[in-house]
Amino acid sequence: VRTALDCLPCLLEQSLFAIRRATDCQKLQQRIMAEMAQRLSALDLQASPPENSMGLYGRIAELTASPDPFAGLKEESTRLALAMRPRQATRINAAADPLLTAIRLAIAGNVIDYGAPHQLNAEEVFDGALARPLAINDYPALQQDLDRAENVLYLADNCGELIFDSLLIEQLGRPVTLAVRDKPIINDALAEDARRCGLERLCRIISNGTGCPGTPLPLCSHAFNKVFQGADLIISKGQGNFETLSTTPAPLYFLLTVKCRVVAAHIAEIAGVTVLVGEPVLFKSRAVGRR
Amino acid sequence: VRTALDCLPCLLEQSLFAIRRATDCQKLQQRIMAEMAQRLSALDLQASPPENSMGLYGRIAELTASPDPFAGLKEESTRLALAMRPRQATRINAAADPLLTAIRLAIAGNVIDYGAPHQLNAEEVFDGALARPLAINDYPALQQDLDRAENVLYLADNCGELIFDSLLIEQLGRPVTLAVRDKPIINDALAEDARRCGLERLCRIISNGTGCPGTPLPLCSHAFNKVFQGADLIISKGQGNFETLSTTPAPLYFLLTVKCRVVAAHIAEIAGVTVLVGEPVLFKSRAVGRR
Repeated sequence: VRTALDCLPCLLEQSLFAIRRATDCQKLQQRIMAEMAQRLSALDLQASPPENSMGLYGRIAELTASPDPFAGLKEESTRLALAMRPRQATRINAAADPLLTAIRLAIAGNVIDYGAPHQLNAEEVFDGALARPLAINDYPALQQDLDRAENVLYLADNCGELIFDSLLIEQLGRPVTLAVRDKPIINDALAEDARRCGLERLCRIISNGTGCPGTPLPLCSHAFNKVFQGADLIISKGQGNFETLSTTPAPLYFLLTVKCRVVAAHIAEIAGVTVLVGEPVLFKSRAVGRR
Repeated sequence: VRTALDCLPCLLEQSLFAIRRATDCQKLQQRIMAEMAQRLSALDLQASPPENSMGLYGRIAELTASPDPFAGLKEESTRLALAMRPRQATRINAAADPLLTAIRLAIAGNVIDYGAPHQLNAEEVFDGALARPLAINDYPALQQDLDRAENVLYLADNCGELIFDSLLIEQLGRPVTLAVRDKPIINDALAEDARRCGLERLCRIISNGTGCPGTPLPLCSHAFNKVFQGADLIISKGQGNFETLSTTPAPLYFLLTVKCRVVAAHIAEIAGVTVLVGEPVLFKSRAVGRR
């Protein structure tokens, strides 16, 4: 997905959210916001929003001397998701199709983006997300491809939903490699977060080599690119990974809740299906290439 | 209300909305958005958001050679409101308290901000707004002050809701002067819009002398300031007028639907009442001064 003009106000709003988490000094907040606005005017609209966001978040971390302003929110969302885990594990085990149920839970988990706003009703928000039908449902294709796959690469998204990712990984029945971000960026999962959620007992954990809230292959490490190229099946979780991989030819399945109209429009364009903000999708990549 | 950091992404989003109405050329849209972002970094945070918006909208009009990009939307919302008028007039006449009902309708009319998004269900949106109780209700004070007033100054807001303003003006039972903007700015009402809605038969129409989507007195004409100073009672409609007059000592009543958290927080601060975005308020100015 290229950065749309609609992404500019959204990136500025996200920057403000980060700035406020990084410093309480109003003068500094103002100075950084002014710089963010400056930087917006020079963004590369050919690049994806997650790629463009890196420079903004990096500069916020630098100017506030706060390398991980979302640390508290990450912990909070992990705590929330952990509290929800037992009931959801039971739900999967009791389901007629445990794999599909685990997939639906993992996509719904994508709404627990930050702990705080949903704190009082995380479970309710989650159940609401779970109740929405998949706007795109490529589950039959996924089942088929998974049957033939000897290994799975799972691209993690945020903390919190990582707990639901672990429930899905348990259902895949294949050796799984989980890829996380290399450095703190927003509330995205790092290796230490994955270990804290017990994921090292279920799969191999690797870094994608970037501090991007997505998976821009040219910026990712050589080691990660090798794993990516060798994967029989890749599960890409969340919007950031989708935004950076939507046109990459690879055996990709995108699991996400659509969070903005730019992404909804992009999905509509490549899949020929109308999707709305808030809708869950299970979407096999349509990109074809040399591979 | 001073411009908060939260206003920056919002102003950028509003700019994009205007830019898209002013030109279809994507290259030009990109160039102007880049300039808007630049300008955001240099805003005066001591000024109100409507004052800060003037330069942005002015520059969009200039760069697109489109002095009134909202002309179509203004017409559309006037058309919508006109279609709703007969039923609402009946509602007022049948009410136990026609004045209060007309006030409630005028505030609810404040949600018909742009015709287009609500096109299919303007009446529904309006009825929904009407159903919400006033979060602040200074109606008893307004009744008292109106009884003693020999004249009323009514500060108009947008087109569309102007129709509901006319229903309220009919109920005031006093000579009313309606103040509108001097030049096209967003979808704000001009003298020609007021005349098109038949308001010249109900009141005197004057310009406030600015192209600001609000009423910043130091920027308003001398003639307008004289009327403002001589008014026994002033009804200020909508958020833009509130943002520019919230701390002005004058016999002001603010009628508005709260449209953002910055204004909600400002009202909470000066009135000591929690108000939510989307809530209607009828709010007597708390500002005291020399007057």
